[in-house]
Amino acid sequence: MKLTMRLGVRSYDIVVRRGALARVNQLINLNRKVLVVTDEGVPRRYVEAILAQCGRGVEVCVPQGEGSKSFACLERILTTMLEAGFGRSDAVLALGGGVVGDLAGFAAACYMRGVDFINCPTTTLSQIDSSIGGKTAVNLAGTKNVVGAFHQPRLVVADPDTLDTLPRRHFINGLAEAVKAGLIADEDLFELFETGDADKDLEEILYRSLVVKKNVVENDERETGRRAVLNFGHTIGHGIESAEHLGGLYHGECVALGMLPMIEDETLRSRVKAVYKRLGLPASIEYDGDEIFRFATHDKKASGDAVTVVRVPELGQVRLDKIPLEELRTLIGEGIQ
Amino acid sequence: MKLTMRLGVRSYDIVVRRGALARVNQLINLNRKVLVVTDEGVPRRYVEAILAQCGRGVEVCVPQGEGSKSFACLERILTTMLEAGFGRSDAVLALGGGVVGDLAGFAAACYMRGVDFINCPTTTLSQIDSSIGGKTAVNLAGTKNVVGAFHQPRLVVADPDTLDTLPRRHFINGLAEAVKAGLIADEDLFELFETGDADKDLEEILYRSLVVKKNVVENDERETGRRAVLNFGHTIGHGIESAEHLGGLYHGECVALGMLPMIEDETLRSRVKAVYKRLGLPASIEYDGDEIFRFATHDKKASGDAVTVVRVPELGQVRLDKIPLEELRTLIGEGIQ
Repeated sequence: MKLTMRLGVRSYDIVVRRGALARVNQLINLNRKVLVVTDEGVPRRYVEAILAQCGRGVEVCVPQGEGSKSFACLERILTTMLEAGFGRSDAVLALGGGVVGDLAGFAAACYMRGVDFINCPTTTLSQIDSSIGGKTAVNLAGTKNVVGAFHQPRLVVADPDTLDTLPRRHFINGLAEAVKAGLIADEDLFELFETGDADKDLEEILYRSLVVKKNVVENDERETGRRAVLNFGHTIGHGIESAEHLGGLYHGECVALGMLPMIEDETLRSRVKAVYKRLGLPASIEYDGDEIFRFATHDKKASGDAVTVVRVPELGQVRLDKIPLEELRTLIGEGIQ
Repeated sequence: MKLTMRLGVRSYDIVVRRGALARVNQLINLNRKVLVVTDEGVPRRYVEAILAQCGRGVEVCVPQGEGSKSFACLERILTTMLEAGFGRSDAVLALGGGVVGDLAGFAAACYMRGVDFINCPTTTLSQIDSSIGGKTAVNLAGTKNVVGAFHQPRLVVADPDTLDTLPRRHFINGLAEAVKAGLIADEDLFELFETGDADKDLEEILYRSLVVKKNVVENDERETGRRAVLNFGHTIGHGIESAEHLGGLYHGECVALGMLPMIEDETLRSRVKAVYKRLGLPASIEYDGDEIFRFATHDKKASGDAVTVVRVPELGQVRLDKIPLEELRTLIGEGIQ
């Protein structure tokens, strides 16, 4: 199936199709210099399949994990492009998860002030969420996504076959963003998690999640307003994610936890916890609330003495609230039960 | 006087007025966190004048010169903003020449994916040319401007009083871009250099140059086509500028030299040389042509086996030519006589 993100001259297709990774060159011109960014966790056969389609492919493989969203990795990619003589009409292709996509996308955004970016997400998280919408970034001094750009891809190719090789926990992690999409905008999608089988329903989950995100992004590409609803769960989630000593929770797991205090309806919150239990996502955690608060307010959604949080009053509804920092501190508490 | 760069939601005013530096806060909100980027060559009294107008001003002063357009300086600015708790509604203000403007503008472009940028150019070069149009960048591995963004300022304040403190050579250097503007699009402006007095005519020169640039940028903000005419003189110019052992020529001086081989009319070329002589710009140079060619083709305007150069067939006219790399090598020769 194919969706089109409609953003005027920056419109692009999102192709979700089994086996598509072997046919990217039928969808976009790869007969030019293509910088393929990947990480050590991506199976080599996917990398080889992509390189075989590129006229002049150059690979940069970064270490797996959030640590690669760094200035050092960014500079390495840009220097590689420069040394290989990349011009404005060449391209960057990301093959991997959200880390690779964010890093490669930002490199594409700033090399010669912007070259084509092609995103081939290979994880549940990136196929559901991070590969579309044009947000790219690296981290700085422990703060996530603080340096980046809005740079839309020219094409997104999500091949669900690649999810077969993901470790189970990694696969489930990405579904948290689909639960999020259901909670804020698609009741049927949420109910699919209550009654269906995530493995069997995978393509429907992918599709519905992408539609939710596409509709939001099309109406507020640069997050000057409503797009912030996609940050549901992310304020406290980023805080938890920054506290590495909590056991190295994955992004989706942190978002799952971060959504709970922001759900206002008690019954809905219980339903969400039941879904987490079914899927294998964490539903509770203890932490030092002051620490999580510090990390959370360093986050980009903080401004002055108030912070904008995203709340779900009931299933399929979402609201942006500007609240005093102290109120956020109260919401964070000393853990999530 | 005031010009408005009309770019839809990204439109902004360019204020050219003596004494304006003391009244920037009457033109835009400075009652927020403002990161003031400047360099060691900018007189302290200008810096103090700006900081006095900022509600919460934070200064970063970088070393003078092209070396500050680096990843290291960029990271220093971004880290300072992060540590001072800058949010999306805060701002970056550049106070200085083109180096400071390019560096600060890129920091503003990528901090939290874009915050307000205010440019207060204090050199002839930046008041005439580099402060408007939204091109920001740093250098990488010796190649100029290879990493950057299009990020339009919210306001440009050019106070001609600041030019009084510039060393003479630095003052004249910037006029090369005004000569360029005349050559490509404004015959009267060029003739002003032949018959007038650049010091006395300064404000007219500033104004006319800005109008030329504004008209080009408004029609091709992201340089997908016609905007490239503003690169007249810059292909060979960048090559000369990159060869530091040639005596540390300034940017404008290099552009002045780089324009000469691209002027097709012999008579016009002689008139341009006479203007350079009058102003005190260099009109000839010897160099190793292979070296200049290497630097020039590393430049962002190269693509594949051809390069787009900008040529002036006669006064006020300009043409983009895609030529084979060998032809550029011939144009470069072994120097400019």
